[in-house]
Amino acid sequence: MKETWSFLDTFEPNFRPLVVIELAKGTKKETIEWFTKRIVDKKANGGAQLLIKPLVTENGDENIYLVGASHLRLLLGAETVGLVKECNDNSMRSFTYSSRKTFKDFADDNHNFLTMSECQYIIKHELENLRAKDEKMIPGYPQAKLYPGKSIVRRLLTNGILLQIFPLHDREELKKLRHTWYGRVKIGYQPLDEIRSYFGETIALYFGFLEYFTFALIPMAVIGIPYYVFAWEDYDKYVMFATFNLLWSTVILEVWKRICAVMTYRWGTLLMKRQFEEPRPGFHGALGINPVTGREEPVYSSIKRQLRIYLVSVPFVCLCLYFSLYVMMIYFDLEHWALNYHEENNSTFSSLMLYVPSIIYAVVIEIMNRIYRYAAEFLTSWENHRLESSYQNHLILKVLVFNFLNCFASLFYIAFVLFDMKLLRQSLATLLITSQILNQFAESLLPYWLQKRHVKKIKKHTHSLKTDTDLSLVEQVNLEKEMGTYFGTFDDYLELFLQFGYVSLFSCVYPLAAVFAVLNNITEIYSDALKMCRVYKRPFAEPTANIGVWQLAFETMSVISVVTNCILIGMSPQVNALFPDSKMDLVLTVALVEHLLLAIKFVMAFVIPDKPREIQIKLAKLEFESLEALKQQQMKLAAESLKE
Amino acid sequence: MKETWSFLDTFEPNFRPLVVIELAKGTKKETIEWFTKRIVDKKANGGAQLLIKPLVTENGDENIYLVGASHLRLLLGAETVGLVKECNDNSMRSFTYSSRKTFKDFADDNHNFLTMSECQYIIKHELENLRAKDEKMIPGYPQAKLYPGKSIVRRLLTNGILLQIFPLHDREELKKLRHTWYGRVKIGYQPLDEIRSYFGETIALYFGFLEYFTFALIPMAVIGIPYYVFAWEDYDKYVMFATFNLLWSTVILEVWKRICAVMTYRWGTLLMKRQFEEPRPGFHGALGINPVTGREEPVYSSIKRQLRIYLVSVPFVCLCLYFSLYVMMIYFDLEHWALNYHEENNSTFSSLMLYVPSIIYAVVIEIMNRIYRYAAEFLTSWENHRLESSYQNHLILKVLVFNFLNCFASLFYIAFVLFDMKLLRQSLATLLITSQILNQFAESLLPYWLQKRHVKKIKKHTHSLKTDTDLSLVEQVNLEKEMGTYFGTFDDYLELFLQFGYVSLFSCVYPLAAVFAVLNNITEIYSDALKMCRVYKRPFAEPTANIGVWQLAFETMSVISVVTNCILIGMSPQVNALFPDSKMDLVLTVALVEHLLLAIKFVMAFVIPDKPREIQIKLAKLEFESLEALKQQQMKLAAESLKE
Repeated sequence: MKETWSFLDTFEPNFRPLVVIELAKGTKKETIEWFTKRIVDKKANGGAQLLIKPLVTENGDENIYLVGASHLRLLLGAETVGLVKECNDNSMRSFTYSSRKTFKDFADDNHNFLTMSECQYIIKHELENLRAKDEKMIPGYPQAKLYPGKSIVRRLLTNGILLQIFPLHDREELKKLRHTWYGRVKIGYQPLDEIRSYFGETIALYFGFLEYFTFALIPMAVIGIPYYVFAWEDYDKYVMFATFNLLWSTVILEVWKRICAVMTYRWGTLLMKRQFEEPRPGFHGALGINPVTGREEPVYSSIKRQLRIYLVSVPFVCLCLYFSLYVMMIYFDLEHWALNYHEENNSTFSSLMLYVPSIIYAVVIEIMNRIYRYAAEFLTSWENHRLESSYQNHLILKVLVFNFLNCFASLFYIAFVLFDMKLLRQSLATLLITSQILNQFAESLLPYWLQKRHVKKIKKHTHSLKTDTDLSLVEQVNLEKEMGTYFGTFDDYLELFLQFGYVSLFSCVYPLAAVFAVLNNITEIYSDALKMCRVYKRPFAEPTANIGVWQLAFETMSVISVVTNCILIGMSPQVNALFPDSKMDLVLTVALVEHLLLAIKFVMAFVIPDKPREIQIKLAKLEFESLEALKQQQMKLAAESLKE
Repeated sequence: MKETWSFLDTFEPNFRPLVVIELAKGTKKETIEWFTKRIVDKKANGGAQLLIKPLVTENGDENIYLVGASHLRLLLGAETVGLVKECNDNSMRSFTYSSRKTFKDFADDNHNFLTMSECQYIIKHELENLRAKDEKMIPGYPQAKLYPGKSIVRRLLTNGILLQIFPLHDREELKKLRHTWYGRVKIGYQPLDEIRSYFGETIALYFGFLEYFTFALIPMAVIGIPYYVFAWEDYDKYVMFATFNLLWSTVILEVWKRICAVMTYRWGTLLMKRQFEEPRPGFHGALGINPVTGREEPVYSSIKRQLRIYLVSVPFVCLCLYFSLYVMMIYFDLEHWALNYHEENNSTFSSLMLYVPSIIYAVVIEIMNRIYRYAAEFLTSWENHRLESSYQNHLILKVLVFNFLNCFASLFYIAFVLFDMKLLRQSLATLLITSQILNQFAESLLPYWLQKRHVKKIKKHTHSLKTDTDLSLVEQVNLEKEMGTYFGTFDDYLELFLQFGYVSLFSCVYPLAAVFAVLNNITEIYSDALKMCRVYKRPFAEPTANIGVWQLAFETMSVISVVTNCILIGMSPQVNALFPDSKMDLVLTVALVEHLLLAIKFVMAFVIPDKPREIQIKLAKLEFESLEALKQQQMKLAAESLKE
């Protein structure tokens, strides 16, 4: 191996590669020298003060670099990003270098105090915050403009000089994690703490939610089975099931907040302070003065953005919704045709044909969802949002509205226009099961198979017969850099959200939906775990304290499901038979019950505290301590001032 | 005048009395000495380091003390309570003594930098935070137990040794304020900034809300007048009016949040950090260790409190609600009897008699509300809440539920059981107008008259013919200590809340309600102003950033009014005539419209930002600056650590 440039290397003989930087082939030498110099340069000179080594591959290319950092550097970085760690007295506190001795398991020679994913997160943060000083452009690339304070890494990425930055897997750790996670068939919880320390909080929280949601569906599934087995059609039993479902879905969403608070308190992210949000990489605009920071940076008029949103995005989304409804009407034509065909022929083939329109429609829905997703991403990025969070919110809103209509419009049409409960049940089952199968296939199994083939090819190429853990660093990096990139939990949550819709919107018509959801989620846990461990590059850890906008999305779905279920029950012949004389009374009763249920939901959401008492006390204690410290400081100051 | 005890007095020749302390007559000398010693003692010795002087009245009693503080002491106190002031660069920042030069209008000799009400708030805070050190009891009163950290003033108050603490009026300022506020008949806004600097943010915000709410009602009133004048009864006009009302009420509540943010930003309270909440004075329990503070203090089991709430308070409230419904039924019997009487006699007297039941019922409702209020206060204080905020929330909830039912149950009954729109209109008008008249009388005019009489008596007693501003300090204190105490904005908001109910719940039946509300509110502003300036003791300023739980209460009312108005419109004969064939279609249409309106409401509340963009930018700027400062500090530390 070549010598490294890092002057700190002498202090850190055990260079541990943490993050891989891949530059474009043929990147100019002056650019590389400038960039690596900035990475190793002292903090005081505006550098990141990290360690970097080139990775020399067989064919002599030198476009891949490994980044690490000294132990001390990482500890200081932990303070900068605001990591929260457990103290000796079991309380959680923001880590500071000066108070390092008070933290649990801290020792100057304990290099495991920070987990590998935390170290990688710190390095990512430091790299992203490497900012231009007085450079006007990236050396060697006059078209890649810089201005003081612009993130260098982001400019390199948008200009294609930097291909990717990704954290390295820890083959040993990963093997252990795989074993405890899905290595053996077992009944039990996932190792969420291990997942969190390997993949970070966002992903651990997704798996936590997936597991919790699956457990929460079990009572609904268990209660639903006898309805199917004994073909119960009694009015009171349906009402009981629906009422239970509606209240249950409120309870589980509220309880999730509490469980989430317990978990993220333990992980420290509940207490992590929000960092100031920098503009997202794709944001562009004319240079101007940002009113908040006072810095010179690209500024984009909010009015222009509003115009783009309301004059282009909103009409486009409406058009897509219209198109989705149009496709739905074609499906009903097909359905009608299939029914006629069956009636005319009445053969086994024709009875099988009855299911064909639903299956085709389910596939078309999935395809439309995926195409729309790209369009939504393109549009939202064209809207030029300054912050990643605002971009995400607009994207999620667009995608949710379309997916909701696309998936459920036909069911609403069947239920409330055609009044055909048999068809509703059949469509619901077909849609649910088809979409689950398609998802599992497209999401995990197909990428896994591609990945397997790719690994085989590479191994064949390098004539290596080693197992995973024996790979050399060069081989490991080469293998991982070709793996797919995991783009976050969005699609996984979306899938759960739609599943929740299938289960809750029409729960009183098809109680078996919960059973399918539970079965799907059990395999989903395994296939998602496989996907994370085997198919994708390791993602950077993202600290988070909750599931964010998804909580709101699930709660909205649960409100809508109150309305749909009340109407469905009101339409059932059993309930109609109870009001033989007056349909008016029936409708009024249904409306009254619906309003009561909604009121109970809101009261329950209000009454159940979002955080368990224990966590509330711990948070109050921390707040009290910081206020006391401030008061002490002020009193000291006051005493001094008054003495003068 | 006697010499004062304060050793600081030599440094502060211009003692300005700010706060009055009245002790019980015959308080033991040793207690007084100990208490005053603690007040003037140095901060370092656990004192409050304030100034205190006895007020010698004619009859030689020495139970009234005047408290003041040196200019420096007040500035340090401003830092302790976390006052936010305007800087030279027009930004709002937490005041600190070390950065005092950067604040607007600050000069070492400018004693008006802090307003008088701010000084009084600081003194109140310092007095309340005067805590027992190692005293086991109050000297001279062995039954008045103390423990380390217990607030001395609160123990003195609960033991009746300390009768009251109140801030002095500033006769000059008050005269000026009275003049600009209500001294001349004028069309225009209230001097909210002046009210705020004299009475504090809570009261200024109430008057701000009252004024805003009155202005917001004007469009509803204006649109409502032609309905009355031309006796419009068309279906489409009613629907238009109701729809406008419902959306309007959402808009005004959202816009209020924005206006409130602008005001409280200017006043500094939007940025004020929440202080740690101490137990409320009445809280009692066995001595134990508080899990949050780790201090020894009274602890009361949360389970016991829950038992008291659910086994006593909830049943009691239900009983009261039942009783209120029972009284309502009696009212309907009376109404029925009056109708019969009128039909039998058909005289002028008997037609007047028609109004008597409504008026009696309105009076009874007011009386029941007031009695219930005492019961609710007693019960809530018996529930033994640890924090004032929790006490307030439970009290407000109890009072709101009962007042809502008590005031509106009869109207709901008339509207949705009797279906008698004429009676509804008549009852609504009687209830609204009677309650407004009663309120104005009981709240302002009666106390004002009593106060006037009292002042006359005192003036006669002291043979003084001076005007208000010429009173000596002794006379002023004697006058003010006998004035009533203002117990906060609760009753004022409650009155507005019920008024909002009368206006919005049945707006489509009685469009004129808004007109009466506007008229009432205009006089209400004047009578409330009179009450604050003339009738009550000056209240301590209470910093606040919003109207708190009332925002939620008003929003809930506006949701309920969507439901009631939709039903009322659905019941109107004009709408019924549109659906001659099918009552089903009518009900379904009404239900659909109702859900649409509710959905629009929620979307509007979600889309309208709670803070104007300008304020958002200012807040983001402050946050950015504090994060930058932290980062600089950390980078300095990091550079030093890495150099070692």
